[in-house]
Amino acid sequence: MRTRLCELFGIDVPVFAFSYRREVVAAVSRAGGMGVLGALQFSPEQLEEELCWLDAHVEGRPYGVDVVMPTRYEGAERGGLSKDALELLIPEGHRRYVEEVLARYEVPGLPPEVLSHESLLGWSEAAGRSQVAVALQHPIRLIANALGTPPRDVVDEAHRRGVQVVALVGTAAHARKQAEAGVDVVVAVGTEAGGHTGEIGTMVLVPEVVDAVHPIPVLAAGGIGRGRQIAAALALGAEGVWTGSLWLGVEEAHLNPVLRDKLLAATSSDTVRSRSMSGKPARQLKTAWTEAWDGAESPGPLPMPLQFMLTADAVTRMHHHAGTAGSRAHELLGSPVGQIVGSLREVRPVRAVLESLEAEFRESVLRVLETGGTGEHHPDSARRAATGTRRGSE
Amino acid sequence: MRTRLCELFGIDVPVFAFSYRREVVAAVSRAGGMGVLGALQFSPEQLEEELCWLDAHVEGRPYGVDVVMPTRYEGAERGGLSKDALELLIPEGHRRYVEEVLARYEVPGLPPEVLSHESLLGWSEAAGRSQVAVALQHPIRLIANALGTPPRDVVDEAHRRGVQVVALVGTAAHARKQAEAGVDVVVAVGTEAGGHTGEIGTMVLVPEVVDAVHPIPVLAAGGIGRGRQIAAALALGAEGVWTGSLWLGVEEAHLNPVLRDKLLAATSSDTVRSRSMSGKPARQLKTAWTEAWDGAESPGPLPMPLQFMLTADAVTRMHHHAGTAGSRAHELLGSPVGQIVGSLREVRPVRAVLESLEAEFRESVLRVLETGGTGEHHPDSARRAATGTRRGSE
Repeated sequence: MRTRLCELFGIDVPVFAFSYRREVVAAVSRAGGMGVLGALQFSPEQLEEELCWLDAHVEGRPYGVDVVMPTRYEGAERGGLSKDALELLIPEGHRRYVEEVLARYEVPGLPPEVLSHESLLGWSEAAGRSQVAVALQHPIRLIANALGTPPRDVVDEAHRRGVQVVALVGTAAHARKQAEAGVDVVVAVGTEAGGHTGEIGTMVLVPEVVDAVHPIPVLAAGGIGRGRQIAAALALGAEGVWTGSLWLGVEEAHLNPVLRDKLLAATSSDTVRSRSMSGKPARQLKTAWTEAWDGAESPGPLPMPLQFMLTADAVTRMHHHAGTAGSRAHELLGSPVGQIVGSLREVRPVRAVLESLEAEFRESVLRVLETGGTGEHHPDSARRAATGTRRGSE
Repeated sequence: MRTRLCELFGIDVPVFAFSYRREVVAAVSRAGGMGVLGALQFSPEQLEEELCWLDAHVEGRPYGVDVVMPTRYEGAERGGLSKDALELLIPEGHRRYVEEVLARYEVPGLPPEVLSHESLLGWSEAAGRSQVAVALQHPIRLIANALGTPPRDVVDEAHRRGVQVVALVGTAAHARKQAEAGVDVVVAVGTEAGGHTGEIGTMVLVPEVVDAVHPIPVLAAGGIGRGRQIAAALALGAEGVWTGSLWLGVEEAHLNPVLRDKLLAATSSDTVRSRSMSGKPARQLKTAWTEAWDGAESPGPLPMPLQFMLTADAVTRMHHHAGTAGSRAHELLGSPVGQIVGSLREVRPVRAVLESLEAEFRESVLRVLETGGTGEHHPDSARRAATGTRRGSE
């Protein structure tokens, strides 16, 4: 499973793992992959704290940070509005609808000791920039940007510090723009992916993006939850994989147990691309909440970042009350997750997940080689080529 | 590229090619793949004629037939209604809407010498059954059924005649039902595919279906238009590929030139899953016609088979007038097609397309083997294993 990205980043396997949990990020990096911390939910001060923790726990292995600097969002043309100015753009009818849905599912308010999620978070270029400034003070190896082209000065500053810039795209046309903006690695995000995602399937998108940005290396994202899918991604021309959903249910993630059980029980048919989370289409678990926003009685989701601001409190209440007797909050509770949720079946530690990815990858390469050959089996050459993927075992 | 399906069907490469054009079917079979004729648009008498032509033109190579026996359609619970009875179920408002849209795009009626498409076609179990009866009188090697589980007696009769039964599915649950019904090969149809398709991407669906029906062989469909995608499909555990869109623009298809140029110009973002064609979601070129049915002013598509009956004449008119001066029929004109439409860039003969699939497949296997290995390149063993995929070159 070694590609030139292993050399570029100093990793053993080209598996990039996105997570909001520092424990997951650190465990992936220590196990030879590339942990990437999602910064969206952290204030600059909180992010500083998270990264100090990571520096102390990655044992010198490389890790990265993912920020959101959307190119298009409400107020962008006015240089980004203040939180107060944005709050004024949220219609009263939408606020009432949120409360109606919560009341219907008997979700109480929060006890005073529970803090609500910060409701604006990183959904603006300004917020993204302050996160970048914090991140670049740490020994990170990559900085990733979703939802648009990173500003040129951010790319240049990262490069000055030896940090690789990674961009996520859903079409070949966007990939070409990112290449022009000077990014070092492009992630082709197929529609199967959790979170913000387009409509083109990974199978179609990856070769298109590879051809569009050649020789810039491409990671495949969307539908990558098993070793067979990593082998397929490499066959399509990717040089590694970008994963997220896979790590939601690991031991180190310490997920809300109600949500964890919902994820473990879900099939690949149980996700939906919905604007209910952020205002832009994002794949997530299909729940009573997504149905409330996508259904006929919905007032319609608001544009980014208003929808997230509108619903942040509500989401905190669902999480808090998912196990509360008499409440049906668990029916509303969801998570961004990709279609590979159907293959999440047990809670395991990060290292065990990575090991099984590698084992299934090797089996898959052997099988392709056998079917890809002359019709005769080539067990010896195939086995020699497919084994020993880690430095330590060479 | 050889798998056990090559032995089972007597083919050189496990590439199954669906087409409504007998010339394409024959050319694929003669070139070493498996041509499969879509029977939907033919009456039993026409199908008989098509299959006689094929018998005379496949040079003894295997070919197959694809019928539609939907499990669920309007009138199914009453044993299938007559065409006249079904016509009565179409609301007048829908008929008016069709004429309004055609008038808006200045599409004239048909001249008297042009026959309209038969408007009911094979969209019922009864129609499917009479097609099966015709097909089984010919030396076909497979019979495929979309949209549901084939009736047990059809499966048994096919088996008595040595014909393999192939079923198309969009979820692992449906695949299990097909396996119980006794089918021999399951096609896992990812959302990328043209025509009737579900929501699960090929990357996620194929491993799920492979595991669900093991040891029944699985073909991957949806997003298969290049050799890299065939290699990826095999990495996912498929033993071959089922293709369709790829063959729309070949020389032998003699497609309407206006439609052919639209397909060659389209990108992977230019398709949509719409109910406008058959009443069930089917991926097709995004056109003014799909927008007219999916938009706010649409009366909403009718259930199968009414939507097809409602629009059959209109579609014939679009095709006929696509090049008529003063008409904007070309804006309405579309076709079922998958997301790989973005990689259709030129009109080539079938044989050239198959050869380039094989060449790119070999390159892809070599590349996976190199990245899948120890970090060192294994050009000799890889090349030995990946070349000579055809019988003739062994």
